[in-house]
Amino acid sequence: MGDPYGLRRVVRPKGALPQQAEVLDPHLPLGPDELSIEVERLNVDAASFRQLAQEAAQRISSRVADIVRERGKMHNPVTGSGGMLIGRVAEVGPEHPAASQLKPGDRIATLVSLTLTPLVLQEIARVHPRAERLDVRGRAILFATGPWARLPEDLPEAVALAVLDVCGAPAWVARLARPGERVLVLGAGKSGSLACAQARRNGAHVTALDYRPDAPRTLVHEGLADAAIAVDATQPLEVYARAREAGLYDLVVNCASLPGTEMASILAARDGGEVLFFSMATSFTAAALGAEGVGKDVRLTIGNGYARGHAELALELVRSTPALQRIFAARVG
Amino acid sequence: MGDPYGLRRVVRPKGALPQQAEVLDPHLPLGPDELSIEVERLNVDAASFRQLAQEAAQRISSRVADIVRERGKMHNPVTGSGGMLIGRVAEVGPEHPAASQLKPGDRIATLVSLTLTPLVLQEIARVHPRAERLDVRGRAILFATGPWARLPEDLPEAVALAVLDVCGAPAWVARLARPGERVLVLGAGKSGSLACAQARRNGAHVTALDYRPDAPRTLVHEGLADAAIAVDATQPLEVYARAREAGLYDLVVNCASLPGTEMASILAARDGGEVLFFSMATSFTAAALGAEGVGKDVRLTIGNGYARGHAELALELVRSTPALQRIFAARVG
Repeated sequence: MGDPYGLRRVVRPKGALPQQAEVLDPHLPLGPDELSIEVERLNVDAASFRQLAQEAAQRISSRVADIVRERGKMHNPVTGSGGMLIGRVAEVGPEHPAASQLKPGDRIATLVSLTLTPLVLQEIARVHPRAERLDVRGRAILFATGPWARLPEDLPEAVALAVLDVCGAPAWVARLARPGERVLVLGAGKSGSLACAQARRNGAHVTALDYRPDAPRTLVHEGLADAAIAVDATQPLEVYARAREAGLYDLVVNCASLPGTEMASILAARDGGEVLFFSMATSFTAAALGAEGVGKDVRLTIGNGYARGHAELALELVRSTPALQRIFAARVG
Repeated sequence: MGDPYGLRRVVRPKGALPQQAEVLDPHLPLGPDELSIEVERLNVDAASFRQLAQEAAQRISSRVADIVRERGKMHNPVTGSGGMLIGRVAEVGPEHPAASQLKPGDRIATLVSLTLTPLVLQEIARVHPRAERLDVRGRAILFATGPWARLPEDLPEAVALAVLDVCGAPAWVARLARPGERVLVLGAGKSGSLACAQARRNGAHVTALDYRPDAPRTLVHEGLADAAIAVDATQPLEVYARAREAGLYDLVVNCASLPGTEMASILAARDGGEVLFFSMATSFTAAALGAEGVGKDVRLTIGNGYARGHAELALELVRSTPALQRIFAARVG
């Protein structure tokens, strides 16, 4: 009898799925349709990492250890978000769908959130704050439904991990950005850079916006965006003023990693346009009621971290775009 | 110098828009581009009302009074949601866009959330828990950008108010439901009933789901849905089992008013399908990471409470559907 969603590992509340669960049990013996991984790195998602860093700048490592010990998963209780991991396959259950494709020792990244991945940490060796990454020793479990990717051999590991972590963003931009459209990308970090590059590849006119002037300017300089705006996305009226000057946007992609950027995104879109929220710091009610409050007829899409073929699309985008390789290498180095 | 978003009324934090503001000042003299309303009824949104009712079943009235006194608006600090109001125009600023259309004494409903509407309450006369409505005396302010609607004369007032409160849902369903598609509507309350009726009008095959067996069965009996499922939407695996029997759905419309229904919605959709979240109890991260966690390629849309022509569309749907009039009359009576 299979357990493709990993229900056996939910400690409480009963009847919850692993992500909704407060506590998972990562210690059970491996189920026949599960797979276990010796973990080496955790990529904590940007919103979660920023919150942890603020909570205790020197203590990220101990907070991560506490959370994983208490919850059996790296599920930040404040932001509700997780991240992803990289590691070597330790054991593959005979009924796991990858049983014939993976063997112990293979290096893979999991494309499923850490918020539902059972995890035990033996050691946190090093924290890389800029890369939002921790080098660890530990053991994680992947369920039968959990997507994974073999690490590509032609890209540096840290670059590949960072790209895979946010590969949903360019995949959804590839579907939503149309040729000739005016696209605004909020946040010129990892997912923002990929979103800009993909929107340009789709034939859109792309504007990159960030509070740090250097980041969007670099995207323009590298040919990944057509225009740059340096303004704080938590200040909706300042963003609106700049967006109105430019004529408003058909599609706004929110890749900002801090809370309070919903209204800036909504005001910057034209009536009848779209906003795609890839920031995990997005508030549902702030977006839904915010658009209503200003009488703005825009379609608001939640950035689903999964889309069929997202890992291949993002890795191919980076492979064929040396500028992205440089930007990611500088970011994760 | 106009102030179309009502910034003058933000007390704190400085630079916020009225909805994001913690506190508004509803006592300022009327601005030249504002309009004031003698308020008679407040329709508190379902998620907010349920939370208030649980917090203090006997004390909804005093909690509403407290919130409005403390914040200058009916903005539930726990759910983050508001509602709408009905009242008579008290005064129209000479530069308000409706200056030539409205005069003191006209009865209107505001189509903008109470989360950004400056409000003073003199009295709460009566609470109608089933209709999630309060009869009050008070004074509210409408900004130049705030949508409003004259109350229709051919529908009972309570029905019209209830319909206008959720008119975004059928408007977005009208755009997203295609002929022949299989549509599942979670929650057979007010917005759920309108969503079912609109999806059928679009030519879709409609299944209504609610934990109360009577509600979806009534929708089928009245010809507003093709099939009924009685199951608790907070139990994702039970919903998934029923949805899988039925062959999964192209479009899932979430109109449930309680938290924790994101995963049921996502699992019930087919790969490549869509979920439209109209429940204000939706969690952004639960939806975004939940879909990723189970590797489901679905487009997730935030239900924007505004869409061009939404009030007219919803009122016309009810006018031309006697069954909806009966359902709403029974609900708000």
